[in-house]
Amino acid sequence: MERIEKISQVLKNKSINSAFILKPLNIFYFTGELVNGVLYVSQDDAILFVRRPKERPLSTRTKTVFVDSFKEIKGYISASTGRAGFELDSIPYNLVAKLSEALEFREFEDISHEIRILRMVKEPIEIEKIRKAGEIIGKTFSQVQEVFVEGMTERELLLELDYYSRKNGNLAIYRMHSFGNEASFSHILQGEDALVSSYLDAPTGGPGVSSAFPQGSSNKRIEKGKPFTIDVMVNFDGYVADATRTFALGYFPEDFKVLWEKLNSVFRFLCEDLLSGRIPEEIYIKTLEYVSSLGVMDLFMGRGKDRVKFIGHGTGLEVDEYPFIAKGFKIPLSENMIVAIEPKFVGEPFGIMGLEDTFVINNDGPESLIPFESSLILL
Amino acid sequence: MERIEKISQVLKNKSINSAFILKPLNIFYFTGELVNGVLYVSQDDAILFVRRPKERPLSTRTKTVFVDSFKEIKGYISASTGRAGFELDSIPYNLVAKLSEALEFREFEDISHEIRILRMVKEPIEIEKIRKAGEIIGKTFSQVQEVFVEGMTERELLLELDYYSRKNGNLAIYRMHSFGNEASFSHILQGEDALVSSYLDAPTGGPGVSSAFPQGSSNKRIEKGKPFTIDVMVNFDGYVADATRTFALGYFPEDFKVLWEKLNSVFRFLCEDLLSGRIPEEIYIKTLEYVSSLGVMDLFMGRGKDRVKFIGHGTGLEVDEYPFIAKGFKIPLSENMIVAIEPKFVGEPFGIMGLEDTFVINNDGPESLIPFESSLILL
Repeated sequence: MERIEKISQVLKNKSINSAFILKPLNIFYFTGELVNGVLYVSQDDAILFVRRPKERPLSTRTKTVFVDSFKEIKGYISASTGRAGFELDSIPYNLVAKLSEALEFREFEDISHEIRILRMVKEPIEIEKIRKAGEIIGKTFSQVQEVFVEGMTERELLLELDYYSRKNGNLAIYRMHSFGNEASFSHILQGEDALVSSYLDAPTGGPGVSSAFPQGSSNKRIEKGKPFTIDVMVNFDGYVADATRTFALGYFPEDFKVLWEKLNSVFRFLCEDLLSGRIPEEIYIKTLEYVSSLGVMDLFMGRGKDRVKFIGHGTGLEVDEYPFIAKGFKIPLSENMIVAIEPKFVGEPFGIMGLEDTFVINNDGPESLIPFESSLILL
Repeated sequence: MERIEKISQVLKNKSINSAFILKPLNIFYFTGELVNGVLYVSQDDAILFVRRPKERPLSTRTKTVFVDSFKEIKGYISASTGRAGFELDSIPYNLVAKLSEALEFREFEDISHEIRILRMVKEPIEIEKIRKAGEIIGKTFSQVQEVFVEGMTERELLLELDYYSRKNGNLAIYRMHSFGNEASFSHILQGEDALVSSYLDAPTGGPGVSSAFPQGSSNKRIEKGKPFTIDVMVNFDGYVADATRTFALGYFPEDFKVLWEKLNSVFRFLCEDLLSGRIPEEIYIKTLEYVSSLGVMDLFMGRGKDRVKFIGHGTGLEVDEYPFIAKGFKIPLSENMIVAIEPKFVGEPFGIMGLEDTFVINNDGPESLIPFESSLILL
């Protein structure tokens, strides 16, 4: 089924007459063109109203009409539009109000959740792009040995890897669904920097180098025997993969290695459940019980009150896609879903350790899309 | 006056009892801390409700309360809250609805415009940051001669400059107010690439290298005698400056140089009006008349229907700040405003030429914050 027909199906199921998609990334997903405009979908029709660009040739099979204002849309859609669906999670209040007024809607309904569900199960072409993003991440991790020089700061190492990943095809745009979150290429965090949480809904935050962007790496030097994590995101042709590895200069402290075995076992425990049919909420609860049994609950997934409430998330056009391995997420895993699993320990005195892979769920189990060793890496 | 008191003043002027600021960047502007939460401001009080981070020390003079949900806020604010102000331009519909429900609001009003007006006139410390961003841009333009190698593509040159700018302090985050717009470090555009418009509200778009991010440079080689523009944005400690210069490898065609003189005269014409007290709309109309008198209206500020309706914009924490040099913008220029002026010609067969500087408006006239020659640059 064409992606756009899947919205029509959603409308039928919810007894909604029409949907108005305004988020450019969703317009791209459904039409293949990222434009500023409105994608109108009814139970049996679809029109892409383009505000901008008008002078660039667009290659979409969706019927396209160029408009300057919302009012012009009215002439093209059926007179009795009834209830309308909007992406109320993402669209600013004023824009919803303006469109409703122009089209004389009184009733509208949120279809954010339904669109996220449509995007959750990937097509082969999408998986190939995430696989390519994963390959760039693998090459980027390999590059750490090449570019690392003693005396480097977290941020200096980050800049080298960022440059390398772009040279190798990283589009370097990191989109998020959740309002107020901002993603960046990589967090390289060591010791006390890893203990700093941030406004981001992520297990690690980091101090950053500016109060105006208070996340990620600092200008602290990478020290001997002080392990650090590199959490990398790469965007290939719109699709992101996400991975984390743990490194140290010189040596890993002995007690660090002992703790690492626990992290590793949590990772393997999680992987065993990445199977079609399993319920994310159940995986989450089970894993937390397992972490508790290892006696490391206070280290798991962040500091104190800033501990995050998930241990895995989907990726795709955004980095916070469905499914979430979290309480409340009850849609069973299924083939062709993408899940990044990211168990992380944060605490004193060791700082941080983490292991994250982006997986595709195949019919015979999970397949990692990150072609890079998952052990501790010594520099 | 403290920034936060200025909101209280807005509330008094508009007879609104309270404001709820949710956009992290605005929370940062008013409190000095970029958090995920709600900044509540009444006519005589302010409380920062922080959802995240809770474990990171915050240095703000604003009274701070940690909360997990919107409902908890209710206990801290006056029982009779009456009409409330929200940033309806920026906050997703669902978030406004959720907060209104938790706090039992029926009436709310948009204060997006008022906040943009507060942010429009900069304090000395903000101007210094934009000045610093401008210095990094100047150094980055100087670097073009150093890193350019014959045979390079637009994108390859861009990656070198991006890397250099970050090494020199560019935070590399580019925030925009307008929904659906996405900004990036630089557009390097030559010939036919410059004729491609995009979803961005910008005089130039560019094809980009992916349909999922269809803006900016392509993988086309930079050719001899085919001028190109480098439009650069740098973020220093939260604040952006924006500038454009025009380059060519080998030589500039003679007719290009003739046309360049016209562009230059438009730039100078505009600068003469960047004075405290002048009305942006009047500057805009006057400049368009001048461009018409030069016989180049069809080349000005974009292609055909994608021509943009401004010739200058403010910068600051975002790149599309007030004031706009555009029709409808009637707030007079005043001291300590920041304006990026960007006359550009786009057309066949020459492709593109552009000149853009970010200015601060001083009491004796505009001062460019871009320390780099404004003439054509030969490589």
